[in-house]
Amino acid sequence: MVNVVLISHTPDPERTIAAAARVSASPVSAVELLEKLTPDRVDRLIRRLLSSGHLSVFEHVSFTFAIEGISRVTSHQLVRHRLASYTQQSQRYVSLKEFNYITPATISDKPEWGDKYHEMVRAAHDLYLKMLDAGIPAEDARYVLPNAAETRLVMTMNARELIHACSLRLCLRAQWEIVELFEHIKAEVEKVAPRLGAELKPKCYRLGYCDEVQSCGIFPTRAELADKGERGK
Amino acid sequence: MVNVVLISHTPDPERTIAAAARVSASPVSAVELLEKLTPDRVDRLIRRLLSSGHLSVFEHVSFTFAIEGISRVTSHQLVRHRLASYTQQSQRYVSLKEFNYITPATISDKPEWGDKYHEMVRAAHDLYLKMLDAGIPAEDARYVLPNAAETRLVMTMNARELIHACSLRLCLRAQWEIVELFEHIKAEVEKVAPRLGAELKPKCYRLGYCDEVQSCGIFPTRAELADKGERGK
Amino acid sequence: MVNVVLISHTPDPERTIAAAARVSASPVSAVELLEKLTPDRVDRLIRRLLSSGHLSVFEHVSFTFAIEGISRVTSHQLVRHRLASYTQQSQRYVSLKEFNYITPATISDKPEWGDKYHEMVRAAHDLYLKMLDAGIPAEDARYVLPNAAETRLVMTMNARELIHACSLRLCLRAQWEIVELFEHIKAEVEKVAPRLGAELKPKCYRLGYCDEVQSCGIFPTRAELADKGERGK
Amino acid sequence: MVNVVLISHTPDPERTIAAAARVSASPVSAVELLEKLTPDRVDRLIRRLLSSGHLSVFEHVSFTFAIEGISRVTSHQLVRHRLASYTQQSQRYVSLKEFNYITPATISDKPEWGDKYHEMVRAAHDLYLKMLDAGIPAEDARYVLPNAAETRLVMTMNARELIHACSLRLCLRAQWEIVELFEHIKAEVEKVAPRLGAELKPKCYRLGYCDEVQSCGIFPTRAELADKGERGK
Repeated sequence: MVNVVLISHTPDPERTIAAAARVSASPVSAVELLEKLTPDRVDRLIRRLLSSGHLSVFEHVSFTFAIEGISRVTSHQLVRHRLASYTQQSQRYVSLKEFNYITPATISDKPEWGDKYHEMVRAAHDLYLKMLDAGIPAEDARYVLPNAAETRLVMTMNARELIHACSLRLCLRAQWEIVELFEHIKAEVEKVAPRLGAELKPKCYRLGYCDEVQSCGIFPTRAELADKGERGK
Repeated sequence: MVNVVLISHTPDPERTIAAAARVSASPVSAVELLEKLTPDRVDRLIRRLLSSGHLSVFEHVSFTFAIEGISRVTSHQLVRHRLASYTQQSQRYVSLKEFNYITPATISDKPEWGDKYHEMVRAAHDLYLKMLDAGIPAEDARYVLPNAAETRLVMTMNARELIHACSLRLCLRAQWEIVELFEHIKAEVEKVAPRLGAELKPKCYRLGYCDEVQSCGIFPTRAELADKGERGK
Repeated sequence: MVNVVLISHTPDPERTIAAAARVSASPVSAVELLEKLTPDRVDRLIRRLLSSGHLSVFEHVSFTFAIEGISRVTSHQLVRHRLASYTQQSQRYVSLKEFNYITPATISDKPEWGDKYHEMVRAAHDLYLKMLDAGIPAEDARYVLPNAAETRLVMTMNARELIHACSLRLCLRAQWEIVELFEHIKAEVEKVAPRLGAELKPKCYRLGYCDEVQSCGIFPTRAELADKGERGK
Repeated sequence: MVNVVLISHTPDPERTIAAAARVSASPVSAVELLEKLTPDRVDRLIRRLLSSGHLSVFEHVSFTFAIEGISRVTSHQLVRHRLASYTQQSQRYVSLKEFNYITPATISDKPEWGDKYHEMVRAAHDLYLKMLDAGIPAEDARYVLPNAAETRLVMTMNARELIHACSLRLCLRAQWEIVELFEHIKAEVEKVAPRLGAELKPKCYRLGYCDEVQSCGIFPTRAELADKGERGK
């Protein structure tokens, strides 16, 4: 089961973003700005930056998460977000004596397949352990382990990339496991930066339409939107 | 079996690097430099840039490879090089009817384990196919597939990052499969850019020592080197 | 005067993008895909990728430009696009005996200010030359040179970042000199990749609305669009 | 005069780095690691990571600086470090009524040139102000301002990139103003992360030799080192 803990982050993240933003168009120093910004001013600045797409200042704050209980399927997808830092538990150096794995609901929902799945996954792990005992290195024995195998990692991502990654990974087109992961990430961010956390949303919320071929229904596609606009004339 | 084909690259890569390098300290235009550089001058410039570590100009040329026959173990390691572009065959959208997989030599060398390994991997793929037939989506059925499963991808990397990635991945501390992959990559580069290809080497060649705890023997560790220097006095 | 020459690029860029895109969802090899794609198929793929925002495959092709005749104002803005490679003529190592500089039209249009501007810029360069003669290093003498001073550089950018940079820098909110620079860049790309070149447009064309506070008139702002949609109901 | 204030940073940076590093080769969770690491263990881990060049874990902590009193010469050099985030005071949106500028010591040391320099810089700023009054936009009037003009910015850089940037910018081959800037940055980091701060050093300290053509004397060049090793045999 996915487990996400925010282990560290830039302190006072929203104030830091707002102060950095003000430096660009102000003759006053960042230190002074940081002190003088009222919570209300921070609030208005954050909202204006988001609506106008001036996102570079969101890079000044970053969040470090301990992530556990995700499959290697999902860690392989996750690390494709290149503007972030990852330290992952190594299957080369850590022998997985205790074995946890993920089971998709589409499999566990069908008892006959769930049973076969569990049996297969356990048999693979059993062979893995036997190969370790026979002196085969962990880095090679792991070739028999399934994609389902759980992994853990530490991930640091700045707020701009969090907004971007969530825009893709909270979209229902993403796979269920990574959607779930980013829902946990969003919940952790909301605890310490509620305005920013509220902005971690699928891309359609920012665009005002769905840019996929078919919409999930939250927003119309761009073609549907254009059509509606026409009819409005 | 790993198969690497260089499908595209910046034309005349070494001349392009040399011309870009000369722009920095020359009052002449890049277009003129590109035309006037003799092969001999290109050669000397490339060597000087490499020895002095002025590697930023190597970013101006890039190489696009079609990579096949590597395991998901290795693709997961490969995509950790973030300064490159990857398009990987999706296990979500492509149903792997025909199944190829990698077998480490430490397993195939021991017939009793090799047999068990092949049997297990095929059983996992067999269950995968049956789950597909039962209507389980490919993106979920694949959780049962082993790390050994073959994947293919297109990778574009610039010459600076190639030098860096090879410095790590041609080191004998890297896992055999990714060492093999980068040996193929190096061979492809050497065909079209021999000087650059020759520079794709483990990091110890550039450092002049091994910075790992224990050396493979090609170069002494830094501690051993300091020791030798002392005795030389 | 800004002068841009495309000195190198990934050969057959649109076919390369299309082949890479197909790898993701196809059981066929990249090499085979590259050979078999008809021009018509390439055309349709490129258009579909662009409309659905699947832009990562555009990273597989890159373009190298020799850029001359831009001010240091503009080069300072340009290098803020971090996902690109730059080699710039150094004011540390190159003594600017021959001095060229940029004059904004808002200044040259007013003869009285134009004259004062030229006089001041030339006086600054004159002092620069005298300081060089007096043995002051070029890297320090240049502190007196104006922002207007011309510079030259070699820039390599992949197609995805070109789309992004043009979306910002062809917007009329950008400064006139960098707009002009990217118009030249677009013109160079169009010569070798017409479909891609045609897509190098201000961000409003992709969004379908203007996300700035005030629109230049090409597209309505998002607020205006929402308003129109409402009235359409 | 350069002024650097560390306005924010990942709390407890060295412990965070050490915990992340341990995740890679440990079966224990990051949260548990973070709690249990003794200061002594943190110390040993940080030193081992640095000496073996395993620097990716240093990306998990970042530092945000308010930087003031540097010239546009130096800000142009600074933003070339692409793996960092910058928000700079805009010369487009901020009219520089109050004008500060940098004077290189090689100029101020020679009174006759110092006087001419100050006169020229002030004359340029005077013309700038008059052009503003005449209705020329600030973004264009600034073309007459010198490279010497002071700027301010907020910069966020992670510890890995800080190590890299310092390795280049604390080298005596860098220009005096950016050396001074990074000395201030180092001093700020040392206050909150003394082990890490101590590691912010010119590249020769890490390499064990100077990789430039000529050494400043701290370390021998690689050629000189090889020569010494030979004689030691």
